[in-house]
Amino acid sequence: MKRAALVAALASCVPPQGGTHRAEWISDTSSFGAQPAARATTIADRYAAIATQIITAARADRGAYLKLAHLTDRIGHRLAGSPGLERAVAWAAEAMKQDGHDTRTEKVMVPHWVRGTEDVALVTPVARPLRVLGLGGSVSTPKGGITAPVVVITSFAELDAKAASIKGAIVLYDVALPPYSADKGSGYGDVVPYRSRGASRAAKLGAVAVLVRSVTAHSLQTPHTGAMSYDPDQPKIPAASVTTEDAMLIARLAAQGPVTVRMKLESRQLPDAESANVIGELRGSEKPDEIVVIGAHIDSWDVGQGAHDDGAGCVTMMQALTVLKQLGLAPKRTIRVVLFTNEENGLRGATAYAKDHAAELPKTVFAVESDSGGYSPRMLGLQTKPEVSAPALARITDILTLLRPLGVTRVVPG
Amino acid sequence: MKRAALVAALASCVPPQGGTHRAEWISDTSSFGAQPAARATTIADRYAAIATQIITAARADRGAYLKLAHLTDRIGHRLAGSPGLERAVAWAAEAMKQDGHDTRTEKVMVPHWVRGTEDVALVTPVARPLRVLGLGGSVSTPKGGITAPVVVITSFAELDAKAASIKGAIVLYDVALPPYSADKGSGYGDVVPYRSRGASRAAKLGAVAVLVRSVTAHSLQTPHTGAMSYDPDQPKIPAASVTTEDAMLIARLAAQGPVTVRMKLESRQLPDAESANVIGELRGSEKPDEIVVIGAHIDSWDVGQGAHDDGAGCVTMMQALTVLKQLGLAPKRTIRVVLFTNEENGLRGATAYAKDHAAELPKTVFAVESDSGGYSPRMLGLQTKPEVSAPALARITDILTLLRPLGVTRVVPG
Repeated sequence: MKRAALVAALASCVPPQGGTHRAEWISDTSSFGAQPAARATTIADRYAAIATQIITAARADRGAYLKLAHLTDRIGHRLAGSPGLERAVAWAAEAMKQDGHDTRTEKVMVPHWVRGTEDVALVTPVARPLRVLGLGGSVSTPKGGITAPVVVITSFAELDAKAASIKGAIVLYDVALPPYSADKGSGYGDVVPYRSRGASRAAKLGAVAVLVRSVTAHSLQTPHTGAMSYDPDQPKIPAASVTTEDAMLIARLAAQGPVTVRMKLESRQLPDAESANVIGELRGSEKPDEIVVIGAHIDSWDVGQGAHDDGAGCVTMMQALTVLKQLGLAPKRTIRVVLFTNEENGLRGATAYAKDHAAELPKTVFAVESDSGGYSPRMLGLQTKPEVSAPALARITDILTLLRPLGVTRVVPG
Repeated sequence: MKRAALVAALASCVPPQGGTHRAEWISDTSSFGAQPAARATTIADRYAAIATQIITAARADRGAYLKLAHLTDRIGHRLAGSPGLERAVAWAAEAMKQDGHDTRTEKVMVPHWVRGTEDVALVTPVARPLRVLGLGGSVSTPKGGITAPVVVITSFAELDAKAASIKGAIVLYDVALPPYSADKGSGYGDVVPYRSRGASRAAKLGAVAVLVRSVTAHSLQTPHTGAMSYDPDQPKIPAASVTTEDAMLIARLAAQGPVTVRMKLESRQLPDAESANVIGELRGSEKPDEIVVIGAHIDSWDVGQGAHDDGAGCVTMMQALTVLKQLGLAPKRTIRVVLFTNEENGLRGATAYAKDHAAELPKTVFAVESDSGGYSPRMLGLQTKPEVSAPALARITDILTLLRPLGVTRVVPG
């Protein structure tokens, strides 16, 4: 949702002609309702010129790309607790300071999970290594590993139906992510529960470990990891993602006879480590105590460089502020970039921000987050207070017409 | 080019009505030329019913899929010299025997190159592992590895232009495979020379090793290997493929300053090993000494399971023969499946076949090979003796109309 932050930035800026109209925002619905026709112009009308100015500048700007190149090429992966994350935090704070913003970091204690040796292989009917990644938060296998028969499952309903055969087994959740659909989206949310909750569901029935088919429609023997969590009432069993190809291999073999897999997963849960949310602000000229938050997360998983997830979001937000600064545009309200730490396996940064800034929340008029990768912007997902959802949707739909030159055409409520 | 073999199989079969027309084939051009209108019907006309019968049977048949599943799931990779290759040879011979074909193996000595430890990493400006695969046939790095500055090259012309900076360097050939084009194809042939000949070209200028950007347009940090060969007049230097992502990373860093890479590649060239071409035949009923060869290669690289390259080709050819057998169709000429050994890094199987069967070549009326993966069949590439190219093209174009129901619409000469 690249440049989506510009919506927020844009709507907070002084219009080029310095008009005297009353500032309107989605938390203020007074201008909606009975006589909408009475309004002379829409926000989009009034901000058309300034939007063009910002979009033109942003398109010509290389700052976001250069920041992303630095973050991914020179810092790389940055899981909570890693030196990489703290280098990224320090770099982001320094970069925003260099760009002229009021910058600070806010301490957050984060979990410190460290991946160790991961060695998983078919034992029968053929000996063959499997491509896996332990799921974030998984416990280790016992010393010496686990060797057990595999039961292939394609739904939680099937798991329950096969309850009698689960005890002592390794459960493979072979649930395919459907091909991407423009209408239905990726389907990621439908399949992720097997990864996030599958271990405890299987443990309840006596499984000794789980393998989860990677939640991806694109694989070149590339395992795709992610977070999982344990039900405190069930035994904690090890969990790893396996490539789509290897999941299909196991399923083919299991359709013909018994399959045995050996799993050795090592990981350590160390004491919580110190990290920080990174905050950069452009202070409001008229209503500095009203805040627009534009956010992304600075941490990443440990097996890539977090370019799309969520380096792209971070640099989009950082540069949105910088473009306004470079154009000399003074927002009426304070625009605050928040680069949250530890989204991936804890949400500690977001939780800490909500707690530490609770007093400001009533004056936080809008918050936008980008965590869908650095693609062409297409839509804005919108959540509002229920009592203002209709007028807020209308207002944002109006404002977003300003982003049509970028390809943004939809506001999706909920 | 799945099922392309059916062209050959088809055209050799007795037509369903047992007509008395003279057998025609592309090596016999007598019916072409002056009075083509005199021919009552085309081959396609006469074989329409039998083609439908074969296509219907082949489409309903699961044999090729089951054979491919066995070859890839239960045998797996099969590089020349490996136990996997000899298991595949024995399995293919047994499978064709079980299907009722005259089957034999023909001994071929093959090179025995074995990949060892491969460890390549950026040293400066950042320390970071790189995803690589040694190229097939590469020599090892010296004990202790090589650490050297990288020079990024995007063409042989640029290599020559930068000749003065190559001595003592690791050359990275950062040549991108263009996106697939329906008109121009994959462009693979244009980029492969950097992989196959790049090491010696760089060695001539004093390079100590080469990295070659993977010749693929699709990568998820997946290095793509392949063969390379050395110019005997130049020093042999180690060569590895690097993922497209890592090649781009190095290029980005090199654009900003010096980049140093450490390479450790181990491989061994062992004494030649014994392997075999696998041959299965359906003997001709009228002209058994005239031969139609339908071929593919039984070996694969060592880092996958050779499903597309070329397991699909092998099972297509094997099953083409089996479908004819199951339908009780007796070809006039002998149809011979040849599963060549050691295509990937030596072509020893093909070379041995040509030598051992030299006496039969004048009576080998047609040969077809599938080595483009197991996709929907779209075209047949056609090479002929120059003196019969026009009539042969016309004849094959006629015959291929029978495969339109499968989606085959083009014959491409050359």
